[in-house]
Amino acid sequence: MSLAPGFPEAEYRLRTLRAQEAMADNGLAALLLTTEPELRYFTGFLTRFWESPTRPWFLIVPAAGAPVAVIPSIGASLMRQTWVQDIRTWRSPDYSDDGTSLLARTLCELTPEHAAIGVPSGGETHLRMPLSQWQALIAALPGRTFRDDGGIMRRLRMVKSEAEIAKIAAACAVAGRAFGRIPEIARPGTPLAEVFRRFQMLCLDEGADWVPYLAGAAGPGGYSDVISPATRRPLAPGDVLMLDTGLVRDGYFCDFDRNFSIGPAAPELRDAHARLIEATQAAFTLARPGATAADLFAAMDRIATGGAGGSDAGRLGHGLGMQLTEPPSLIPEDHTVLVPGMVLTLEPGIALAPGRILVHEENIVIRDTGADWLSSPAGPRIRELPL
Amino acid sequence: MSLAPGFPEAEYRLRTLRAQEAMADNGLAALLLTTEPELRYFTGFLTRFWESPTRPWFLIVPAAGAPVAVIPSIGASLMRQTWVQDIRTWRSPDYSDDGTSLLARTLCELTPEHAAIGVPSGGETHLRMPLSQWQALIAALPGRTFRDDGGIMRRLRMVKSEAEIAKIAAACAVAGRAFGRIPEIARPGTPLAEVFRRFQMLCLDEGADWVPYLAGAAGPGGYSDVISPATRRPLAPGDVLMLDTGLVRDGYFCDFDRNFSIGPAAPELRDAHARLIEATQAAFTLARPGATAADLFAAMDRIATGGAGGSDAGRLGHGLGMQLTEPPSLIPEDHTVLVPGMVLTLEPGIALAPGRILVHEENIVIRDTGADWLSSPAGPRIRELPL
Repeated sequence: MSLAPGFPEAEYRLRTLRAQEAMADNGLAALLLTTEPELRYFTGFLTRFWESPTRPWFLIVPAAGAPVAVIPSIGASLMRQTWVQDIRTWRSPDYSDDGTSLLARTLCELTPEHAAIGVPSGGETHLRMPLSQWQALIAALPGRTFRDDGGIMRRLRMVKSEAEIAKIAAACAVAGRAFGRIPEIARPGTPLAEVFRRFQMLCLDEGADWVPYLAGAAGPGGYSDVISPATRRPLAPGDVLMLDTGLVRDGYFCDFDRNFSIGPAAPELRDAHARLIEATQAAFTLARPGATAADLFAAMDRIATGGAGGSDAGRLGHGLGMQLTEPPSLIPEDHTVLVPGMVLTLEPGIALAPGRILVHEENIVIRDTGADWLSSPAGPRIRELPL
Repeated sequence: MSLAPGFPEAEYRLRTLRAQEAMADNGLAALLLTTEPELRYFTGFLTRFWESPTRPWFLIVPAAGAPVAVIPSIGASLMRQTWVQDIRTWRSPDYSDDGTSLLARTLCELTPEHAAIGVPSGGETHLRMPLSQWQALIAALPGRTFRDDGGIMRRLRMVKSEAEIAKIAAACAVAGRAFGRIPEIARPGTPLAEVFRRFQMLCLDEGADWVPYLAGAAGPGGYSDVISPATRRPLAPGDVLMLDTGLVRDGYFCDFDRNFSIGPAAPELRDAHARLIEATQAAFTLARPGATAADLFAAMDRIATGGAGGSDAGRLGHGLGMQLTEPPSLIPEDHTVLVPGMVLTLEPGIALAPGRILVHEENIVIRDTGADWLSSPAGPRIRELPL
């Protein structure tokens, strides 16, 4: 299993062929893609430049053959390093025509009159281009119709190749080593913002390419949410410290957290942590081909909350890959049947008291006969940091 | 000038009032906002959780009064820490109705029948919600029309308050200190990927909250683009190393780069670097209220390329703030008139040879009678790192 950057061309060719099979089934003459993971999925085009919202980027997957890139000229040099040969560029930003006519011409060339062009439009997607440009594109192509991609991208991306799984596993290993070094950086009196800063440095030191996501909290006997940035409040004895990281290694995320007690853990905290581990283990044991996302939700919800049916978090886990969160969602309404190659987070939570929660998270991959851990799973006993 | 996190409530109230004045001028009964910087601009809601694409988030700026948040319940605790009082939540993800009906009801309540609702739709914007949900929202509100916000958000955000400028200056200072420590991490033989990793650690060590953006390159006598991720190629004598960082401190970006010669710089490299500094200085000297974005472009283009009219980069600088890149663009077609409080990057480039470029970047703020540097400007002589 290679850990070289990116993937061999064969991986992108296979992804493209699979998309084209599904497109044929759905009556789509092309896919039009606009977001970072969608473009990278078919090309390997990896850059942090997407942080700039200025320029739109387009990739067309035609009914047959390799994808066609319609992109700002600033990206041409990097795109030429991928397997994509047909790269059409314009100088962006262009206030009079920021790629719209070039894109329209290219779509006309690649699809027959009256063709349907698929655009991912369902849950967890968005169109990364100005709404006015989208309307102009539709107006420029009266002979074509745009419609939802029928979930093609969702279904394709939900199942990871071995090469993708290896990259996610490598990201998890980096985070695991960083979590193992928490005692170096978290002591009573250390401001939480400083813990955040130092933890990101540990992630980089252990091999992260970058750390797009870090959330966490610290509070007496629990915390109020799991999405807040750090405050400057110093850690205090009796605090529960939680850090939840989505670091990236070679374009793939991990996403899991760890909880720490600052000093000895109170009995109710110890119990709650052990219950979360039990809930995670129950879902892990269930996780195999044929089980559903909803099954995993139910297993965790039963143990963590006695079957309350969920919480403000909205779900108890999700897919993971090129993005921090991907389909499916572990909720009662998601009946996605698990198949080998799906990578999931298991993320049960418990309310310790009003406004005080505890959340645990691990990463797994579905295999032929069960699941494997990608994160090295935490034990039932919450880790206690010395005072 | 406070460096406390976020802003006093008065800042958000003033922003809201200014938006409402412009809305009245544009005949808009509300603004509907969906992206991170748009929501944060009016609320101070700061979280890295936007990295997860799963859930849509909405903010409504009504014709009068405070904004109304229509958000997933996972964000309620954090939103309650802002000045926003009217927070309406649903448990997301919800496959049957992911906030659409709640949003539609709220818009009906806040706007009269036949109202026009503004949605930022022009350049550099996008709608951060599924296209299918957007179509469902339009269908659910037959009595209202959605149209472009008339550039309200663009114009408001282009002019920064003193408190915002202070935060950008603080971010620039952090990056400046990190760049000063490059000799600690970049030596012949060090793989570029390791330089990237260590540079991000330096940024954190110097006070960055996180490092959303780092690009750069290293190559003999120049590099081929400015958006690529790191390769594993070791630095070699004669290389030019460029690092371009957008780090965040308290929610605001810096965005500038530095070039280094690995060992003594060749004469043509020294000359090119000096010319870029001269171009930057020319734009800085011009930069004052009344000058335009196009004027700054022309000043830099004349010196850097003899008036070639631009390059594949597409522009020679841009706005900066809550995002790595913001309007305006320094291009011939952008006639935005500079006013005090605008924060800009100056980013001229030179082609040293086919496929070999050199790019320099600084950050400035427009003041009443000229401009101030926010980054501590580099001198004409390219910095040489010891062999």
